[in-house]
Amino acid sequence: MDEPFSLRQSRPMPVRKGEKTRELILNDAVALASQVGLEGLSIGSLAARTSMSKSGLFAHFGSKEELQLATLQRAVELFEQHVVRPALAAPRGLPRLRALLLNWLDRANDSDAGIPGGGLLISAASEYDDRPGTIRDALASGQRELRGAIAKAVRLAIEMGHLDAYVDPWQFTFEFYGIVLAAYHERRLLRDHRARERALRAFERLVAQSFEAVPVSANG
Amino acid sequence: MDEPFSLRQSRPMPVRKGEKTRELILNDAVALASQVGLEGLSIGSLAARTSMSKSGLFAHFGSKEELQLATLQRAVELFEQHVVRPALAAPRGLPRLRALLLNWLDRANDSDAGIPGGGLLISAASEYDDRPGTIRDALASGQRELRGAIAKAVRLAIEMGHLDAYVDPWQFTFEFYGIVLAAYHERRLLRDHRARERALRAFERLVAQSFEAVPVSANG
Repeated sequence: MDEPFSLRQSRPMPVRKGEKTRELILNDAVALASQVGLEGLSIGSLAARTSMSKSGLFAHFGSKEELQLATLQRAVELFEQHVVRPALAAPRGLPRLRALLLNWLDRANDSDAGIPGGGLLISAASEYDDRPGTIRDALASGQRELRGAIAKAVRLAIEMGHLDAYVDPWQFTFEFYGIVLAAYHERRLLRDHRARERALRAFERLVAQSFEAVPVSANG
Repeated sequence: MDEPFSLRQSRPMPVRKGEKTRELILNDAVALASQVGLEGLSIGSLAARTSMSKSGLFAHFGSKEELQLATLQRAVELFEQHVVRPALAAPRGLPRLRALLLNWLDRANDSDAGIPGGGLLISAASEYDDRPGTIRDALASGQRELRGAIAKAVRLAIEMGHLDAYVDPWQFTFEFYGIVLAAYHERRLLRDHRARERALRAFERLVAQSFEAVPVSANG
């Protein structure tokens, strides 16, 4: 329970040379897909962006779909590396939840920061929610894991006495994610830099109210 | 101030026959774009879906971009018609805000209901936030109007004494929109039908806390 955020896909492993190359290519793929959409990502469009030949890329990824899936997985890894893992340095409970939010706001949503993993995961979700298939399944499973990890961190905050025992971790997670999404839309589409402050205020309000929560109804 | 939600793009006008045909075509275009993305919408892909010939569609829309822009505008009209305008029947203040949320949850986000305007506006926002151009501009301006309309409704609720005078309408709008986004993602990608109830609980919490809000700092 001490590492509530670790996501299954990205346990650290020793990296071999071929894997390092693959990782660098996939970083470009994440950046490209963040811009043109995951559907716009193909061996051809990636070759046009990088210095790799199409045949070289085909050696790494046999098909467009394989490339898309590997890119999604890389986005999850980047998200864990830059957003989730640094939050684990904060004391467990509320400070860790707050650190997660801050990292998410400051790093993952901002493609200028070169860490667009979190942004891709959000945009791909609306891109694929209506298209059944392997990619949609991978996205849904990643989102479920991420929400599960947030809910675990909320439970830890309850155990620490930082949140009221009546707080419903899934409800809290839902609202936490809503705050992140609103900030993402407001900053990316509207270029509104008040988004960050609004998100932090919304979070503190959510926390403040979670001290005085009343028992929820049985169907809650 | 009695009609806080009316969006500029969709003032009602007498409809001529050619316009009616165009409207029906655009309804199909909204449905198609909701599925394949706005970028996947073209004269060709729309012809394949409808019984219209490509040349017939070209007579209505001279280019892919013109079709995309007209489709976005139609999505705004559908959203106003099915979500915003019915909410105006509720008494002004909190009941109207609540009606807006309910309509949004029950109609706009659900492509099964055949009214996918609201969903398209959300998905197109993440599709285009990184692509400068006419479509991005149209989306951003539509989102600004929508947020302005919600903020106006919040101000009305403050005037009616339904929300505390200290409530910041833009902060409330930010959180309101976050609730809608979270419900949209949870239902569309995860097919989680608890999304609706979670959204309603989040809204009531937002409202409850807006009675006891403290003055915000000057940079708020």
